[in-house]
Amino acid sequence: MIGLVVTGKPSFPPALAARLAKLGVATVHEAMGRVGLMHPHLRPIYDGPGIAGPAVTILAPPGDNWMLHVAIEQCSPGDVVVLACLSDNNDGMFGDLLATSMKARGVAGLIIDAGCRDTAALRDMAFPVWSKAVHARGTVKASLGSVNVPVVCAGIVVYPGDAVIADNDGVVVIPNRQAETAAVRGEERARLEEAKRLRLAAGELGLDLYGMRRKLEEMGLRYVESLDEGR
Amino acid sequence: MIGLVVTGKPSFPPALAARLAKLGVATVHEAMGRVGLMHPHLRPIYDGPGIAGPAVTILAPPGDNWMLHVAIEQCSPGDVVVLACLSDNNDGMFGDLLATSMKARGVAGLIIDAGCRDTAALRDMAFPVWSKAVHARGTVKASLGSVNVPVVCAGIVVYPGDAVIADNDGVVVIPNRQAETAAVRGEERARLEEAKRLRLAAGELGLDLYGMRRKLEEMGLRYVESLDEGR
Amino acid sequence: MIGLVVTGKPSFPPALAARLAKLGVATVHEAMGRVGLMHPHLRPIYDGPGIAGPAVTILAPPGDNWMLHVAIEQCSPGDVVVLACLSDNNDGMFGDLLATSMKARGVAGLIIDAGCRDTAALRDMAFPVWSKAVHARGTVKASLGSVNVPVVCAGIVVYPGDAVIADNDGVVVIPNRQAETAAVRGEERARLEEAKRLRLAAGELGLDLYGMRRKLEEMGLRYVESLDEGR
Amino acid sequence: MIGLVVTGKPSFPPALAARLAKLGVATVHEAMGRVGLMHPHLRPIYDGPGIAGPAVTILAPPGDNWMLHVAIEQCSPGDVVVLACLSDNNDGMFGDLLATSMKARGVAGLIIDAGCRDTAALRDMAFPVWSKAVHARGTVKASLGSVNVPVVCAGIVVYPGDAVIADNDGVVVIPNRQAETAAVRGEERARLEEAKRLRLAAGELGLDLYGMRRKLEEMGLRYVESLDEGR
Amino acid sequence: MIGLVVTGKPSFPPALAARLAKLGVATVHEAMGRVGLMHPHLRPIYDGPGIAGPAVTILAPPGDNWMLHVAIEQCSPGDVVVLACLSDNNDGMFGDLLATSMKARGVAGLIIDAGCRDTAALRDMAFPVWSKAVHARGTVKASLGSVNVPVVCAGIVVYPGDAVIADNDGVVVIPNRQAETAAVRGEERARLEEAKRLRLAAGELGLDLYGMRRKLEEMGLRYVESLDEGR
Amino acid sequence: MIGLVVTGKPSFPPALAARLAKLGVATVHEAMGRVGLMHPHLRPIYDGPGIAGPAVTILAPPGDNWMLHVAIEQCSPGDVVVLACLSDNNDGMFGDLLATSMKARGVAGLIIDAGCRDTAALRDMAFPVWSKAVHARGTVKASLGSVNVPVVCAGIVVYPGDAVIADNDGVVVIPNRQAETAAVRGEERARLEEAKRLRLAAGELGLDLYGMRRKLEEMGLRYVESLDEGR
Repeated sequence: MIGLVVTGKPSFPPALAARLAKLGVATVHEAMGRVGLMHPHLRPIYDGPGIAGPAVTILAPPGDNWMLHVAIEQCSPGDVVVLACLSDNNDGMFGDLLATSMKARGVAGLIIDAGCRDTAALRDMAFPVWSKAVHARGTVKASLGSVNVPVVCAGIVVYPGDAVIADNDGVVVIPNRQAETAAVRGEERARLEEAKRLRLAAGELGLDLYGMRRKLEEMGLRYVESLDEGR
Repeated sequence: MIGLVVTGKPSFPPALAARLAKLGVATVHEAMGRVGLMHPHLRPIYDGPGIAGPAVTILAPPGDNWMLHVAIEQCSPGDVVVLACLSDNNDGMFGDLLATSMKARGVAGLIIDAGCRDTAALRDMAFPVWSKAVHARGTVKASLGSVNVPVVCAGIVVYPGDAVIADNDGVVVIPNRQAETAAVRGEERARLEEAKRLRLAAGELGLDLYGMRRKLEEMGLRYVESLDEGR
Repeated sequence: MIGLVVTGKPSFPPALAARLAKLGVATVHEAMGRVGLMHPHLRPIYDGPGIAGPAVTILAPPGDNWMLHVAIEQCSPGDVVVLACLSDNNDGMFGDLLATSMKARGVAGLIIDAGCRDTAALRDMAFPVWSKAVHARGTVKASLGSVNVPVVCAGIVVYPGDAVIADNDGVVVIPNRQAETAAVRGEERARLEEAKRLRLAAGELGLDLYGMRRKLEEMGLRYVESLDEGR
Repeated sequence: MIGLVVTGKPSFPPALAARLAKLGVATVHEAMGRVGLMHPHLRPIYDGPGIAGPAVTILAPPGDNWMLHVAIEQCSPGDVVVLACLSDNNDGMFGDLLATSMKARGVAGLIIDAGCRDTAALRDMAFPVWSKAVHARGTVKASLGSVNVPVVCAGIVVYPGDAVIADNDGVVVIPNRQAETAAVRGEERARLEEAKRLRLAAGELGLDLYGMRRKLEEMGLRYVESLDEGR
Repeated sequence: MIGLVVTGKPSFPPALAARLAKLGVATVHEAMGRVGLMHPHLRPIYDGPGIAGPAVTILAPPGDNWMLHVAIEQCSPGDVVVLACLSDNNDGMFGDLLATSMKARGVAGLIIDAGCRDTAALRDMAFPVWSKAVHARGTVKASLGSVNVPVVCAGIVVYPGDAVIADNDGVVVIPNRQAETAAVRGEERARLEEAKRLRLAAGELGLDLYGMRRKLEEMGLRYVESLDEGR
Repeated sequence: MIGLVVTGKPSFPPALAARLAKLGVATVHEAMGRVGLMHPHLRPIYDGPGIAGPAVTILAPPGDNWMLHVAIEQCSPGDVVVLACLSDNNDGMFGDLLATSMKARGVAGLIIDAGCRDTAALRDMAFPVWSKAVHARGTVKASLGSVNVPVVCAGIVVYPGDAVIADNDGVVVIPNRQAETAAVRGEERARLEEAKRLRLAAGELGLDLYGMRRKLEEMGLRYVESLDEGR
């Protein structure tokens, strides 16, 4: 699947993207059974609000950013570009010119399992990037990759159109058809957590709130006054 | 020592914690003979003021945050929770609900040799965390660990009640009974450094201020005008 | 070349340093043919403006910061100190006292392939440092290194007087005699990029702007509507 | 897809496994267009012959080897077990008792993106393992994972029944339906390489054998007698 | 505790060392409740039999091997030397001359949380070393450390006289007074494992041998014929 | 200096190479003042005898092995090929076909700061390689690098014709004109070490042999019977 650009991809409602961005990575990840979370080596290049949107995927050779140019043509407003590398690479594949072009297309942000540069300019223009490294090292345009094929990015399979949510906690991916479910479940979880937050803030203990004491006792947890007593 | 919660721990004067926090990690570390410094993979999750306080310790299985709930009940205002893992782990063991509960208990902050999540919320609520990773990955509540037993966290032995000082330079641990000494010696060192700072700021060289020139000469340091001359 | 301090170094016009700092690391690196870029493990200790200036080089034993004191005497206003270690080391070789001394000498900043501490103070005094680690661990003054000899720092050869440019994207080094050329070429590149930026911002695609379509077609890039079609 | 054991999987001819094992990882990887290669952090725990066979997949929680016991029941002679972890983990999930059980089932070997122990015993019993770490750290049996669901192991998607080839160069995965094609193409490539090998061994240069000289010249490669001449 | 040599240490019966060496790291680690295992970055420098014996501990500055010479005088036949570094370091602190001297003293082997060199010679003279790196980089003799004080080596606290067991699976440490218990429990565990091994080798499944089926069912593990059925 | 092949290089006597290989990396490194040692991430792909010879250098783009073919034409019997990458890369740039070609040219071995594959075949044909990774990942032939220009490989500057010595302890580089001196000094050091080895083997302590006791005492080293006494 090298040398292929798939031009069609599933639709994704903008309002759904907004709901997922508001929920954030940790809540969506938990609500969907703790799957789809990318490796934590991906970090935002600056502090800023989270994003969510449907994936445009890129498979790129190491040290070669040609496919980024190809991918931009396939982007629609609200898309999140997800770049996976054919081999480990930290080169600065992405900078302010590509970001300018993506912004002109309405792209919401970039997830890149490689390096990024021009980070000060990217922050100034408010184009969010999650990358494996900040590195000024330039790349070539010499070999083909693919656009909008399924990729494995930072350990997670991403199909074009999958929901990508990214914030300061990392990046999570939800299959396109489960995105609505993720928002519903996430909002339910957020509501439940808000209720718990109030009780915890008031001083109630998680041991009591979650009813953990009995199970801990059954498993043999012992309370002693001093270490010597515990021996 | 798995499955044990020790409920007693040595007392620690709040005023002493404030003095140590003001001195900071580097000064205390130097003043006490350069011991007790945790591995630098522990980093603060946001920029903020340093903290100091007595340790409540946790020994946790990898990917399991049950013992954090158990530990909160053992916390008093001003405590610093220190979590060590039984095996290398970066999962997001700690988030905003646990932080809400700790804040309600008056906990000063968390040192966790594993991952942390909900980092934006933690910054908003001003709950400081030093962690090995930022990772949304959720954890289970399935296996026992221990609370307030001696642990090795990021390379350093920590007993309950030991003084933990953490700031942007890292985390240092001082045995409970030496905490007062550390404050005294640290303050003395800070005074001396302040005097040196003024002389250095005025342009005096460290070579002269510290009287290094003769020893350097004895060890054979040569000054030459050009590299060719030095060969 | 251990135990040597070279007191002479090539001159460097301050105005040239300002031009290079304004261009930034990525632009200079590209303009000079993509050489001279240090390894991306070097990161700024706080967000701030970039710097540029001629190198004062240090070769230091691991865990020993004696040569930093020796080097300061060799510094002139605008210099950038570059410290390479004889062996991998993350100890906090540099802190606020040394920074105070360097500031008094007019040093522009420090590139250190080791650790740095007192980072909050360094930010407050606006002394920029690019380091491999933040670590409070103190160092000894026991063994000789050298000052102003050629060093390999983070993978790049640095001679005294070479132009060092550092910003949020990393650190690049240009030989002293090529620094003027680097500024000229960088400024030309910046002009060209500005023109491209305007066209990209207006929605023109890189595929068209750079005339990539034909070469991509020749190399066999295929556009398909769906993945099934591509098989 | 946590808590699921899929009992059916595609068939795989033993003779095909033997052909793929003989070809080896590098040849199959090249013959199939350079896809499917796992991350090189997976290494064999001892020097030995390579293996190939259809995958039985496991998705396991970090530090929990329960699903390995569940998976063994699903194994047939010649299978290669592939274990992916829900989160980074190096614990010693696999040792000689599990290997004894797998051997009794005729399992060809194990690919585990985590740790392995009892390595001396495994070598003595000739049970090959490719792992991310050697680590004696024991694991619990407390949480569910899945068996024979699609997993991402060391960066590569693996479906049950996919061909897994592993040798000293690493691990490559080929979709079940392409395994025959991989063998055919690999054997063709091996033949071509053997012919090239003879010519290269006789002293013919790759520059001539592959006809590279003209393209290198077109791209601007210059031959000079000395570096000074090249400037 | 820098600059101290403690000359006394608890006794340790040679026969006990032999029993522990025979059991090996994984068995002892399990038998004692899964504590005391060093970080897996420690690896043997060559394949060979495991060792066990009482610890002589060293705390050394990074890049400084002076304390190794001091420690040898404190060694008795059968001792295992354990070196911890004051800061991360991979320099080649130990080579064939020090090994010759240790062999003359009857030392059983070395655990060093730093680098080692002359590895071919060490293998030829059958002196086993577990180290963090192989590195020829030489070290100085300039700063004090300590001998036979408690140290944290690769994450584990080691007191002089503690039992150190090392083999191809890693290194485990048992407190001196628990060493006899460790041998007894380890031998019991080895017997039990041998019985299980025979049953597993005969084809019995761990699911049945350990009676896991009911608990797995209670936790909700589902068996399905195909993935579609599982959705 | 991209796109350049330098055809001339300094001569190097084969007998000198043999002397340096016999001395080995650690001895030569020490004899020449502890400089020139490459980073320890370079490891031999199999256990075997060390090598030494003059460098043929390669500067290669990441994931591109074209320049290896170009370099072979520049090789003479006894040369050691040294490949540095323009950016961090672990791809398998080198395999058995290139090794066959190098063997036909009489090349002594390869130092590659990237990946290597076909490692079983390389061992069988006795072609030694020191690499950063073993990785089957294939590379392209799309971009130019250079041959026989100065490179920085694994942290060390290498000029064509420099003496490269490699064995199980790592890789050290000596400037061409100092190679004879290195052999002489290394042989002197080896003689001295042999004498010391005999005395140490007879039980003499390094403390006495090197006369360390007085300096240790002056620096304040204290001997105590027990830790309590030391406090």
